[in-house]
Amino acid sequence: MDARTAYQELIADFREKCLLDSVGAVVGWDEQTYMPPKGSSHRAEQMALVAKMSHAKLTSPRIGERLAAVEGSELVRDGETIEAVNVREIRRSYYRAVKLPSRLVEELARVTTQAQHAWREARKNRKFADFAPWLEKVVALKREEAQAVGYRESPYDALLDEYEPGATAKEITEVFAKLRAELTPLVGAIVQSGRTPKRDLLTREFPIDRQAIFGQAAAAAIGFDFAAGRLDLAVHPFCSGIGPGDCRLTTRYAVREFNQGFFGILHEAGHGIYEQGLDAQHYGTPMGTAVSLGIHESQSRLWENQVGRSRPFWEAFLPRLQQTFPGVVDDVSLDDWMLAINDVKRSFIRVEADEATYNLHIILRFELEQALISGDLAPKDAPGAWNEKFQASFDLTPPDDAQGCLQDVHWSMGGIGYFPTYTLGNLFAAQFMEQARKDLPSLDEDVRHAQFGPLKDWLNEKIHRPGQQWRPQELCRRVTGQPMSHQPLIRYLREKFGTLYGL
Amino acid sequence: MDARTAYQELIADFREKCLLDSVGAVVGWDEQTYMPPKGSSHRAEQMALVAKMSHAKLTSPRIGERLAAVEGSELVRDGETIEAVNVREIRRSYYRAVKLPSRLVEELARVTTQAQHAWREARKNRKFADFAPWLEKVVALKREEAQAVGYRESPYDALLDEYEPGATAKEITEVFAKLRAELTPLVGAIVQSGRTPKRDLLTREFPIDRQAIFGQAAAAAIGFDFAAGRLDLAVHPFCSGIGPGDCRLTTRYAVREFNQGFFGILHEAGHGIYEQGLDAQHYGTPMGTAVSLGIHESQSRLWENQVGRSRPFWEAFLPRLQQTFPGVVDDVSLDDWMLAINDVKRSFIRVEADEATYNLHIILRFELEQALISGDLAPKDAPGAWNEKFQASFDLTPPDDAQGCLQDVHWSMGGIGYFPTYTLGNLFAAQFMEQARKDLPSLDEDVRHAQFGPLKDWLNEKIHRPGQQWRPQELCRRVTGQPMSHQPLIRYLREKFGTLYGL
Repeated sequence: MDARTAYQELIADFREKCLLDSVGAVVGWDEQTYMPPKGSSHRAEQMALVAKMSHAKLTSPRIGERLAAVEGSELVRDGETIEAVNVREIRRSYYRAVKLPSRLVEELARVTTQAQHAWREARKNRKFADFAPWLEKVVALKREEAQAVGYRESPYDALLDEYEPGATAKEITEVFAKLRAELTPLVGAIVQSGRTPKRDLLTREFPIDRQAIFGQAAAAAIGFDFAAGRLDLAVHPFCSGIGPGDCRLTTRYAVREFNQGFFGILHEAGHGIYEQGLDAQHYGTPMGTAVSLGIHESQSRLWENQVGRSRPFWEAFLPRLQQTFPGVVDDVSLDDWMLAINDVKRSFIRVEADEATYNLHIILRFELEQALISGDLAPKDAPGAWNEKFQASFDLTPPDDAQGCLQDVHWSMGGIGYFPTYTLGNLFAAQFMEQARKDLPSLDEDVRHAQFGPLKDWLNEKIHRPGQQWRPQELCRRVTGQPMSHQPLIRYLREKFGTLYGL
Repeated sequence: MDARTAYQELIADFREKCLLDSVGAVVGWDEQTYMPPKGSSHRAEQMALVAKMSHAKLTSPRIGERLAAVEGSELVRDGETIEAVNVREIRRSYYRAVKLPSRLVEELARVTTQAQHAWREARKNRKFADFAPWLEKVVALKREEAQAVGYRESPYDALLDEYEPGATAKEITEVFAKLRAELTPLVGAIVQSGRTPKRDLLTREFPIDRQAIFGQAAAAAIGFDFAAGRLDLAVHPFCSGIGPGDCRLTTRYAVREFNQGFFGILHEAGHGIYEQGLDAQHYGTPMGTAVSLGIHESQSRLWENQVGRSRPFWEAFLPRLQQTFPGVVDDVSLDDWMLAINDVKRSFIRVEADEATYNLHIILRFELEQALISGDLAPKDAPGAWNEKFQASFDLTPPDDAQGCLQDVHWSMGGIGYFPTYTLGNLFAAQFMEQARKDLPSLDEDVRHAQFGPLKDWLNEKIHRPGQQWRPQELCRRVTGQPMSHQPLIRYLREKFGTLYGL
């Protein structure tokens, strides 16, 4: 088989696998939004069938044979061509998939389903002991997975690679250490600044129908295309890029929690704008696929925080907020509002944390995960290790495990290696935004006038359209001229909170 | 391979095919309800992939081999066992699928997609000539399909069998002829009765949010389980049984068209109650699948017309209607309401026709379809033939083809053989209902008190739970002790309209 034919067949097969995954995405979205309650066990069977068929397509010997026929050929000699990128990334997916014995894949699916159930109960009852045996099983399987996949330096790398291709624990450890060294004193200074936000501004009565209107208008304003997407309700907000012309956002509202609904929408819209910005021509191939969870998260954080929690943004949107919620926030000044939505405080729960303390929550999890996978930490000892580290980072000890090591779903799902991508997202967001400010001198002025087109176009061109052309670290270098660093995020946080808290 | 093993593998394979179809059903439902407009071309690719994979599963040699290994064995000797029924019906599906050359399947998919587009345009422009070449292509392909599938008496039977297993043009022709002979004078008598319904009652202002509340309450009252289903909006109302615990109804509302929303909901809820009444234990096999379109339609018509347009029903629901729409129908008497919702008149459009004239619309189509397939009628001559028959049946000539032979989507979709199932549904509905009245002497009294449980339970037991145990005609005999006949429908219509119109 000549290389060109092999390549074309490879792409056709891989595209079909992606198309099947996108069918699964519709069904998965429906499960979280509109499925009637009694449909859940049939839905589990549907999802399992699609996953099985997709896995069979990816691990088919056809893929391996065609990869072998293309690799080393003239067609992929220059590593930057479309063909080379697609072959490189299909190889990565194929390699990972065939390395995992199907017994392990099935066992992981089974155990993590049960573990999530056990986690939910244990968290509700604040009783880690009920979850401990499941964490033990999950960790054992993930260690087995790491061995099966293989790694150069650390078994944790094999897990990390699933979410952040090419990343290593070593490089993340280095940048996280520098980040923490700067964050800890910054958080200390803010907490001791003596300025306290008027927290009650955000817990006034914001009727949900108005929140929906305000949030959708903002998502549309920043560039999410509602003719190619939707916003629906879900218990756990997410974004699902179904395919060209179809991207689904979800959110949840609470009348007295403005932050949750609004910043949740901006966050998911940021993910959505990435998905909508992928090159439809390359749909179903790596060139038309998002790079990594870290880069994806950079896009959601950029819109949620760098833009959505900025003063220029609220110069445009505070008057709109006052119009949308008459009588609710008429008396609120821009200064008070800015401080309220940028309330920094040491607290127990990651998902409620502010921009400054958030990353300390992640670093703690990153360290514990590595210890679990290396075997240095026994799963049963997780609560003690958690609380000890929490005391060191936050000067607080969780009152119970529900507010400690039981708060997140990730480990029960087998998502070990996932957490660091949240902070990578924050780092990339700050670094990209610093570059965007250089490239777009009128950026703040644009935002002040609710003109988001230039920033969106810049992101489309620099980050979205290239797909998986470059791995995350290389993409960062290409876009910003610099390797990933903690400095842009620190500069951003120092300036922002320095002003807000008068440091 | 022993017969038992072959049977188990056959069922496992067929179940997987059905599970995959149900994935397609979710995606198809989403397409009609929530998909953003720009998602349509990606959606077409998703649907085509699922159809292709499902077809591949059904026509896999594994199925043929396992069928061969079971057939003739002790396991299926008694034709009424679960195994025998499943094997008989899987054989039917398999036989039909493998008989069709894949070239023909693809050509039909391609041509009907384009023909539907051409039909929409032609209907809009009231110009049959633009649709004629497409009808020609569709008819030619359907004739080819009939030859490929094979038949005993008439090529039309091969097409009919797709929708109504085991039915023949000959037996339908006989019963339809008797039906028409009775219907024509009945309609004539009604039209000349001198009684005219107050049609404006139904075109008052019925706010849509209230229509939704009233319609959902009625659907729930007759027994549709909303914990195992939903009701959403769609341009063309339908019911989709996704699987156990998940059945989706859709409807559409217009403020000044009470009939459309309300009776549409009852109709789809009737289909939904059938789907929800299938035996979940047999899901994915013929024993857990609806029998035919005719029987399915009998369930929707039974609830929509036999129950929903009956006087006892409105004895219970007119007061509720008045409560739900305060100030809108306060002045309406039960007599006036009954006449308004049972307005019989000769008109051009099938989907707007009443219970009496509806079947004349179907008989006309049934005759034309047969002539198209036999070759007696050239597609280009369809409008003339239509109008001639219409004049004979309705004493009217359509003013244009949009109100004549271009009104329905079916032929453009390749759905030749589909129309008669609507009237079969009406026949079965009347015959089943006559039997239900015998078995449930307090039926009218129950309905008068909005107690629908006994009727629903009767239908569940007699019609729904048996799945495909018996073919439609045999099911009819088993349930009513009689072969299918035009008489119960005629008795029902005579009595109902005799009273309403004082005949």
